[in-house]
Amino acid sequence: MNDTTTRRNERVVWINGELVPESSGNLSFRDAGFVYGDAVFDTARTFNGVPFMLEEHIDRLFKSLRYAGINPGYDKAALIAATHETIEANRHLLGPDEDYWVSQRISSGVPSFEGETPNREGATVVIECMPLPLKARAPMFNGGIDAVVASVRRVPPEALSPNAKTNNYMNMKMAQREVSAIAPGSWAVLLDHNGHISEGAGCNMFIIIDGVVVTPPTETVLPGISRQVAIDLCRETGIPCEERLVSLYDAKTADEAFFTSTSLCICPLRSFNGGLYPNSPGPVTERLIEAFKNRVGMDYIAQYLQHLTDGPADTGI
Amino acid sequence: MNDTTTRRNERVVWINGELVPESSGNLSFRDAGFVYGDAVFDTARTFNGVPFMLEEHIDRLFKSLRYAGINPGYDKAALIAATHETIEANRHLLGPDEDYWVSQRISSGVPSFEGETPNREGATVVIECMPLPLKARAPMFNGGIDAVVASVRRVPPEALSPNAKTNNYMNMKMAQREVSAIAPGSWAVLLDHNGHISEGAGCNMFIIIDGVVVTPPTETVLPGISRQVAIDLCRETGIPCEERLVSLYDAKTADEAFFTSTSLCICPLRSFNGGLYPNSPGPVTERLIEAFKNRVGMDYIAQYLQHLTDGPADTGI
Amino acid sequence: MNDTTTRRNERVVWINGELVPESSGNLSFRDAGFVYGDAVFDTARTFNGVPFMLEEHIDRLFKSLRYAGINPGYDKAALIAATHETIEANRHLLGPDEDYWVSQRISSGVPSFEGETPNREGATVVIECMPLPLKARAPMFNGGIDAVVASVRRVPPEALSPNAKTNNYMNMKMAQREVSAIAPGSWAVLLDHNGHISEGAGCNMFIIIDGVVVTPPTETVLPGISRQVAIDLCRETGIPCEERLVSLYDAKTADEAFFTSTSLCICPLRSFNGGLYPNSPGPVTERLIEAFKNRVGMDYIAQYLQHLTDGPADTGI
Amino acid sequence: MNDTTTRRNERVVWINGELVPESSGNLSFRDAGFVYGDAVFDTARTFNGVPFMLEEHIDRLFKSLRYAGINPGYDKAALIAATHETIEANRHLLGPDEDYWVSQRISSGVPSFEGETPNREGATVVIECMPLPLKARAPMFNGGIDAVVASVRRVPPEALSPNAKTNNYMNMKMAQREVSAIAPGSWAVLLDHNGHISEGAGCNMFIIIDGVVVTPPTETVLPGISRQVAIDLCRETGIPCEERLVSLYDAKTADEAFFTSTSLCICPLRSFNGGLYPNSPGPVTERLIEAFKNRVGMDYIAQYLQHLTDGPADTGI
Amino acid sequence: MNDTTTRRNERVVWINGELVPESSGNLSFRDAGFVYGDAVFDTARTFNGVPFMLEEHIDRLFKSLRYAGINPGYDKAALIAATHETIEANRHLLGPDEDYWVSQRISSGVPSFEGETPNREGATVVIECMPLPLKARAPMFNGGIDAVVASVRRVPPEALSPNAKTNNYMNMKMAQREVSAIAPGSWAVLLDHNGHISEGAGCNMFIIIDGVVVTPPTETVLPGISRQVAIDLCRETGIPCEERLVSLYDAKTADEAFFTSTSLCICPLRSFNGGLYPNSPGPVTERLIEAFKNRVGMDYIAQYLQHLTDGPADTGI
Amino acid sequence: MNDTTTRRNERVVWINGELVPESSGNLSFRDAGFVYGDAVFDTARTFNGVPFMLEEHIDRLFKSLRYAGINPGYDKAALIAATHETIEANRHLLGPDEDYWVSQRISSGVPSFEGETPNREGATVVIECMPLPLKARAPMFNGGIDAVVASVRRVPPEALSPNAKTNNYMNMKMAQREVSAIAPGSWAVLLDHNGHISEGAGCNMFIIIDGVVVTPPTETVLPGISRQVAIDLCRETGIPCEERLVSLYDAKTADEAFFTSTSLCICPLRSFNGGLYPNSPGPVTERLIEAFKNRVGMDYIAQYLQHLTDGPADTGI
Repeated sequence: MNDTTTRRNERVVWINGELVPESSGNLSFRDAGFVYGDAVFDTARTFNGVPFMLEEHIDRLFKSLRYAGINPGYDKAALIAATHETIEANRHLLGPDEDYWVSQRISSGVPSFEGETPNREGATVVIECMPLPLKARAPMFNGGIDAVVASVRRVPPEALSPNAKTNNYMNMKMAQREVSAIAPGSWAVLLDHNGHISEGAGCNMFIIIDGVVVTPPTETVLPGISRQVAIDLCRETGIPCEERLVSLYDAKTADEAFFTSTSLCICPLRSFNGGLYPNSPGPVTERLIEAFKNRVGMDYIAQYLQHLTDGPADTGI
Repeated sequence: MNDTTTRRNERVVWINGELVPESSGNLSFRDAGFVYGDAVFDTARTFNGVPFMLEEHIDRLFKSLRYAGINPGYDKAALIAATHETIEANRHLLGPDEDYWVSQRISSGVPSFEGETPNREGATVVIECMPLPLKARAPMFNGGIDAVVASVRRVPPEALSPNAKTNNYMNMKMAQREVSAIAPGSWAVLLDHNGHISEGAGCNMFIIIDGVVVTPPTETVLPGISRQVAIDLCRETGIPCEERLVSLYDAKTADEAFFTSTSLCICPLRSFNGGLYPNSPGPVTERLIEAFKNRVGMDYIAQYLQHLTDGPADTGI
Repeated sequence: MNDTTTRRNERVVWINGELVPESSGNLSFRDAGFVYGDAVFDTARTFNGVPFMLEEHIDRLFKSLRYAGINPGYDKAALIAATHETIEANRHLLGPDEDYWVSQRISSGVPSFEGETPNREGATVVIECMPLPLKARAPMFNGGIDAVVASVRRVPPEALSPNAKTNNYMNMKMAQREVSAIAPGSWAVLLDHNGHISEGAGCNMFIIIDGVVVTPPTETVLPGISRQVAIDLCRETGIPCEERLVSLYDAKTADEAFFTSTSLCICPLRSFNGGLYPNSPGPVTERLIEAFKNRVGMDYIAQYLQHLTDGPADTGI
Repeated sequence: MNDTTTRRNERVVWINGELVPESSGNLSFRDAGFVYGDAVFDTARTFNGVPFMLEEHIDRLFKSLRYAGINPGYDKAALIAATHETIEANRHLLGPDEDYWVSQRISSGVPSFEGETPNREGATVVIECMPLPLKARAPMFNGGIDAVVASVRRVPPEALSPNAKTNNYMNMKMAQREVSAIAPGSWAVLLDHNGHISEGAGCNMFIIIDGVVVTPPTETVLPGISRQVAIDLCRETGIPCEERLVSLYDAKTADEAFFTSTSLCICPLRSFNGGLYPNSPGPVTERLIEAFKNRVGMDYIAQYLQHLTDGPADTGI
Repeated sequence: MNDTTTRRNERVVWINGELVPESSGNLSFRDAGFVYGDAVFDTARTFNGVPFMLEEHIDRLFKSLRYAGINPGYDKAALIAATHETIEANRHLLGPDEDYWVSQRISSGVPSFEGETPNREGATVVIECMPLPLKARAPMFNGGIDAVVASVRRVPPEALSPNAKTNNYMNMKMAQREVSAIAPGSWAVLLDHNGHISEGAGCNMFIIIDGVVVTPPTETVLPGISRQVAIDLCRETGIPCEERLVSLYDAKTADEAFFTSTSLCICPLRSFNGGLYPNSPGPVTERLIEAFKNRVGMDYIAQYLQHLTDGPADTGI
Repeated sequence: MNDTTTRRNERVVWINGELVPESSGNLSFRDAGFVYGDAVFDTARTFNGVPFMLEEHIDRLFKSLRYAGINPGYDKAALIAATHETIEANRHLLGPDEDYWVSQRISSGVPSFEGETPNREGATVVIECMPLPLKARAPMFNGGIDAVVASVRRVPPEALSPNAKTNNYMNMKMAQREVSAIAPGSWAVLLDHNGHISEGAGCNMFIIIDGVVVTPPTETVLPGISRQVAIDLCRETGIPCEERLVSLYDAKTADEAFFTSTSLCICPLRSFNGGLYPNSPGPVTERLIEAFKNRVGMDYIAQYLQHLTDGPADTGI
């Protein structure tokens, strides 16, 4: 299979400095990223093919690396350049009305052991593009997300910080699997170790009470880039916004609620633990969605809805 | 490279039903085991080349699978057979006085996404042999382990159960990295969310107080196979043994202490948080070590010490 | 309406020493039982019309009274006698294959206030019969209960003891309402403040792991009378039984599980948080059910199943 | 007894749409408000016979209803109208220098059961007037309240939110009973599950440190209407006011302290856990009391003191 | 003042190897025992002038020393001998029907600083005799102790172990001061950080429920020597005894309760948090008191009661 | 030894109103400050011989006294005067480039017991001067402090408030001993009971993230006088400063960090838990150090560095 063919048919992935077809994008079964989940990552998305706030994502990635004690072997500029290179190499495979998730994943590499040096030393660095799950999540923009609190609690910061994006995602997975099993199609929300709302599985949660937008402080949640955009948009549009502890009472008695994430941007909640929000999406959410569209220069909801089918909603987590 | 050559030079690894040379033992960068650490594993060891308590390890593996919600696609008998097959295929590469760790690792596989089906469906199953780290750990048998409590706390059971052996090992890694940075050569011990001793990084801890052997209950620790052997050996040799909460006070004022793990069997502690245990290894530990040797039919400590060099102790975690 | 008529048509309720038709069984809107839920209760059931372990229920009731600081104004013997009197007065209204719940509820009465003495002083004591919800719960005996963990946590003992049966049941109600909303027909299980399994809504939970019956200790659960019967039956039938902390891992990886309560006696679980138990009801559960039937002298499951209809399961809580 | 007589002699209570004499104001012993305390309520008071901030109380009531999952069957306007109707019907019974507490209590009603439909369906709604306990509490305005911390901790928000006013008041009752037993005449204060000051039994607590008014944030306390008035009065009178965690140290070393509640408005503390506040009531408290009097258009303290007798202080809780 | 005079008039104290009159028993204001409370201690008592279980007390003292990291500069035998020497030197000052508390207190000494060496190096060791507070505590044996739970919680083991007897007693002092202020004459009980009963101020607590003696496990309490005697006496007299968590519910609903301490031996509780125990002292307590008297060869309660005056009870803590 | 000689050779200490040579500065072995650590203290320092913010220290001392329930027997003015008197009496003993720590320590005195009145009643008050540990700590200013988190957790406020400076310092001592044993020369940092950064042993911690200075709120730390100076200096120099929870993630990923204390003023951290801060001391720390020097009118770092020797760093705690 030559380059030209590949170029037509298959995405490529950047692994340790080289672009290879995804189907050849392999890692050793001894990679610490597999054996221990000993890796960190970050994920930006494109709008109209252009990555959004890539620098902020890379900044956060380097904080995750420092927290985890993993030396990536590249500086920020190099990873930003490689990310652009990877996007360009895959751009022609984007369908109409599609966009990419673009992720950097960096594990601590393959450990040497008892004098056996692995084939390569140093961190394993992977940069990859993935079409956004527009089809699977379109139903969520067609009525809103049903959020359900899992019995699984978020790992507390003293054990592993939710501020770092690590590949140790089983806590999130376990929560989502539980919720998917008992309430198919719903999206898991995790409480922190004190019983406050922390995060949805892979997203931040906002509620609106009496005209004030509220989201949990970063002590027990990922400092989401889209979360920060939403906060900034509140300020810019004159909507009061507070970062404070959010209780089950708050979430149940709120007027409106939404999730933010790189892929979702802002997506309204229809219900929380089985209780419907009145008139979802509510007026404050709608104002923020409009502001978000302006900010990214694209009607991202229309993009989702163009992929709407009869299939069930799927969080993809 | 033909089969005969491989047989001479390189270990093989069993991946999804096939034995391949380890250097070709690759997994997709999209494997959930890499992306999320969404995998469970178990590890037995051989004594004189024979795996010890393999059935118990496989039983625990299937509990981990059930907890995690991962369907391996194989039953217990099949995985036991494949494990034996893998050992046999690698047996000729064992050096004198060496033994294998043999591990099964099972991830939830490569997720399908937006209609893109991955090359293969179902779980990813890896079975591999690894020579025991006899050299790196020999110093620990030559004086005892220096245990140091990390500030990182063990993930609480409500977030992710310590009873399941999952590939989400960053909590352990973070603890060990912290301890290695501030007290090189020491082995990390983690406290549970209530401040009791839970586990060493990858091992169980026992203390001896006034002639009684004490180890934390399984609520916050892995139910180690070697831990159970040690408990059984206490009963068989008439040494009182209790499973109860162990505090920092208990650990500091104990007469003796030891770790158990698949590789360590029973290894004495020399010190705890900088305080030396008197006369390590103490008499009760020595009796249990003798009993352990009898149980496995081998002087495992002599095996370690044959590999002793001037190099530093290395937990390998 | 004369006594004879009443006798034919309507159950009577014992209120403060008098039997009155249930439709006239009224309490002041100022009763502390209504205003504060400031009341305790206990509930026995009949088998073939005979109350089971009534003395044990009354003993527990008096512990609840002492804990709450409520003086009932009656001694144990008087309440037992009144309970029998109430059962007798209602016995003729039991249909075939029916039995009664019989409850004592005692509030602190109507508070006097600013010199306004209420019509009556002292505690409010109600003793009432209620046909068992055989129809609503029959489906649970026809396949097993689906247990789902609520996000609502059990009130901790330092705030209000789960050992006392108080009328402050909103914690249970909130849990069941949440579960009923997201997984209709399922029965809520609550975790305690540390994340261990405590109770089902109004029932105790048992699991069977490797042949051992396990149930949470009474620190965070009601010391159920039926729970104690189940423990005693284990001892009598030679099945090992432990009272120890039960984690989500334990509940998910158990071989079998069941609830006990006054009405359910022993009822198997079909699933826990969406994960099916293999071969429910399992062999240990079945042995205990048989022993329970012998103990109470009646096939209580057959009784339930005679009331089976097409209607949905309803916990009635 | 005819209507006219009743009008002269006895208050009336609004129950499910009808005004009846209080002595006939009965509820079924099967009402969920009695059986489970499954009800919410709110209580305003009158000043000179006029209800104060009734709309705010009704707004909070509807949040409590939504939290509890109880449908009242009336909208806000209807309950406000019914409240005014009830006050009017009882106004002639107010003595000189008296005022009313006016409460709405809404339970989930009488559950249907096994096909037995109760006499009426839907929520039970009670609206009632009660003279303020001016006599019992007058001593508290004649020297200040002695506050004592109970060993009973406030129910944590993850179990039942303190933001909702539910009829599950036993947690408060247990605290007050304990304090009344060991320190008669004192008022119970509860700590939250983390050991911070939460609430007094039925009231909010404020302290003044170095000229700053401090009160716990609403995470673990009722968002009291009078609490909000006090905060607003601080702002209006230029006194700095903070909502932040209050520790035992803060409460013990404060310069002044006071309670707020619907009935108390602002009432100074004389002592906390046995330690006297210097010069109670302090200057900041007195300024706020004056501002409160202006706000409600009445010297509410004079009203209390007109009812002062030799009798002991009684919290009435 | 010559030796003979001293011998007649004043007790002596053993400080760092020398017996000196108590009025000359001084320590530097720079002693770490004063500056930091950086010291440990143990206290035995005499019966008829003979120290009881001195060896057990010294064993525990050496565990405290090891925990605290203080090197006393003496071995166990030397401290036992010095203790006997101190008792003998003070024996003639014991009045009739009196006995001594005898304590060893060992601080880490006077720290050297910036090259300034203190006058003496090494630990500060004090051994002293003190007449038992027979008068102050006699009222407690004349009716029983009133126990009241303080709002102050016991320091958790992760911060400072309750198993070690350190001179950091402010936690206990604060609890007792609070209780003495709000309920004069009562004895403070502290809850642990989870809300379970831990210890009385300077004593262990036992309750009797349904014929079973129960006391908290040593996780959060001092392993009292008298506590162990009481446990042993249960076994010897055939009374079932359990070490398990004790809740507020347990303490309130128990049939009997008592404290143990070196000075109190076994002393019944009259009330707990204001609730009277029926028929205190109860039959089980009385049996254990008899057994205790036999064990120590003396009617220690009669000794107390011979000192009974009209004065108030005083815990002396 | 006459007064003149003393004046030349030895510092004096103020004890209960009298200045005595330090070698005669003795306290009874029965002083509650020794027996229980039942004492509070405060410590200011001089710059060029002039005490800094003495009034603020005395204000805090009186809050500690009130919290502890100790009556000093002196008012603030008297203690300030006595402090100045003590400094003056010792001033001639200050070497060049030296300064004093000046401390007030107040214990509850010598308890009376069973009618034995101690020689003196009332509190024990000690005021003393101590040369700053310039030599021991000079290395910390020559490269920065290595901070290491102890496994010992800070005593929680519900047990003993960190806001009060009490002589119960074993919690701090245990943490520092642990850290000194495993990482000699490092300075201990304690986490609070929730796992957030609280304090260094005897100092407050600040971090700088993205240009913002952050320090933990006073809920779980001493409200340090130097801490407040640093906060004020931020405001005065236009550097944003926040008091908010600081996690291990924050501390590990910060750009800079420093400690504040009376003696250290502002001292940069070189590393945290083994991870180096880039370019320590960072630019924000250096700006604040400059501002601090201006505030106190002295280059306090130069003073330290003039005492630099080859000796090891020693926290002196």
